[in-house]
Amino acid sequence: MSHRPPTIIDVAARAGVSKSLVSMVLRDDPGVSAARRTAVLAAVEELGYRPNRAAAILAGTRTRTIGVVVDDFRNPWFVPMLDGVRTALAPHGLRLTVADTQANAHLGTSPLDDLLALRVDGVVLAAEGSADTVVPPDTPVVVAGERATVPPGLDVVASDEAAGGRLATEHLLSLGHRRIVHVTGSGGPAAARRAAAVERMVAAGAVPLVVGDGPTAESTGYEGTRLALAEHPGTTAVFAANDVMAMGAIAAVRDAGLRVPEDVSVIGNDATPLASSPLVRLTTVDPHNDEVGRLAVERLVSLIGGPAAEPAPTRTLVQPSLVVRSTTAPPRA
Amino acid sequence: MSHRPPTIIDVAARAGVSKSLVSMVLRDDPGVSAARRTAVLAAVEELGYRPNRAAAILAGTRTRTIGVVVDDFRNPWFVPMLDGVRTALAPHGLRLTVADTQANAHLGTSPLDDLLALRVDGVVLAAEGSADTVVPPDTPVVVAGERATVPPGLDVVASDEAAGGRLATEHLLSLGHRRIVHVTGSGGPAAARRAAAVERMVAAGAVPLVVGDGPTAESTGYEGTRLALAEHPGTTAVFAANDVMAMGAIAAVRDAGLRVPEDVSVIGNDATPLASSPLVRLTTVDPHNDEVGRLAVERLVSLIGGPAAEPAPTRTLVQPSLVVRSTTAPPRA
Repeated sequence: MSHRPPTIIDVAARAGVSKSLVSMVLRDDPGVSAARRTAVLAAVEELGYRPNRAAAILAGTRTRTIGVVVDDFRNPWFVPMLDGVRTALAPHGLRLTVADTQANAHLGTSPLDDLLALRVDGVVLAAEGSADTVVPPDTPVVVAGERATVPPGLDVVASDEAAGGRLATEHLLSLGHRRIVHVTGSGGPAAARRAAAVERMVAAGAVPLVVGDGPTAESTGYEGTRLALAEHPGTTAVFAANDVMAMGAIAAVRDAGLRVPEDVSVIGNDATPLASSPLVRLTTVDPHNDEVGRLAVERLVSLIGGPAAEPAPTRTLVQPSLVVRSTTAPPRA
Repeated sequence: MSHRPPTIIDVAARAGVSKSLVSMVLRDDPGVSAARRTAVLAAVEELGYRPNRAAAILAGTRTRTIGVVVDDFRNPWFVPMLDGVRTALAPHGLRLTVADTQANAHLGTSPLDDLLALRVDGVVLAAEGSADTVVPPDTPVVVAGERATVPPGLDVVASDEAAGGRLATEHLLSLGHRRIVHVTGSGGPAAARRAAAVERMVAAGAVPLVVGDGPTAESTGYEGTRLALAEHPGTTAVFAANDVMAMGAIAAVRDAGLRVPEDVSVIGNDATPLASSPLVRLTTVDPHNDEVGRLAVERLVSLIGGPAAEPAPTRTLVQPSLVVRSTTAPPRA
């Protein structure tokens, strides 16, 4: 027996009916006799036939839900992205469900597999994939955000993180800072921001000082900044790879007995709700993650609708912008 | 024709087989002939038979996934709760997916309906329900947290919010504060904390000053505290109904040119990751939401396993505890 998956034609042949009658049964058309319906369903069972996606949608067996995988619920960078996702889902009447990469750490399963087990129609992968991330063939998945590892063949929609790193660094340079610390961490967005920051600092004749070891979390921002200030007391500005790391950096500056921005300027990246909090009022880079979410879903919906028109995966970059608030100022003379 | 839903006995009679053979087909047992399988599936189709939950689980047609509805991804109170949810799901091999109440605002659907459309095995409702929240019969749903409106018949697992409100108020009173502002907002947990705070302040001979209008969000905490400090400049302490409101309160104190805790003490509630942030180091009440999540899932799993042993819905309260950090101190003499 062949391992070729059975087709609708095989089902029709086995049931002794036409292909279009099989389609009618699959989409639950009432104009089919019970006897013929029975024969078709039996053939479906016996052959192990799995209708293709388009047929499944017609038959109403899909969930009309999109899954979004985010990296960590404690870092609210994904909140604006979900706003964009909603905007793009609305005209299609598609629902949304969310998992973070830790959601099923208790099972050791991947969040992508978990969402596929829910038979979502497609997935926005807004998190770093692991080496063993396997996307089943014919499964609509779009990567949102700059990722160190992108599973082969997937479309990517991301903010231009290198441009964001340049914006942040140039803001500090233009204020007159030359003793700038960049606090970084793991993952694709941080790597792109880091490379751009180092390149700009070198071009401006500043010594690029890069610290930070671990996940792009608040604690990494705190520890990196604490160490940098201890070893390089002349530091006048910190560019943190994201907003939660910038919160850690501000705390470390204050714990060193210094003020933000009078003694040390701090800039973040992500334009999260935290950055606009009146407790923080963080100067940051807005990656326009709402736009990233919107475009990722538009791409995903077109994949769900049918095979990609173009054979090669696409890469779409959204241009970031600078948001100046209260944590950056010129260095003291 | 009767509107009574068909049972497995009806299916067996229509297919001319035994009840146990129907069960074998439903759980995909290979020891059934193709002819009998066909007859049973035809009877299932013709009668519109929907197997009950237990049979569906045996037949592998459930998703083995639990849905959790949270109120707002911007308020990370749910992060510890999800840790507890994971702990309790692990031994059962159940997956987790999450929606917030805004997840499908673009469709105007309820998050409960959205999760049920994904055929989750059960739902933890960790958000305020709306007046039109309808829980379909025989659907395992457990409410997590103190809610203003609980759909009839549902079990509730919550932190004892009144006890939490008393803990926070007594902490401020024991430090010597008598001019205490309570900043509150909408929803069940806030209402319970508010009632307890007012009761304790009155009992201690302090004038209960309650402000706050709107959702229990950072902006409400900021605006309420700003107004209270302007109208009652003698205020020495603020009890905010939750941690994000406390962040707003701290910002308002600082914007009034005052220091925390030297001039004004601030206490929150929820023990979120924000409260332990080195930028905030907030004194707060730990509702032990990890324990709430764990117990809610244990209850849910027992509901999924079969009808409740006790006919009446249960209410389980977890006792909170005080976490003293850096934002509270005695009032200045």
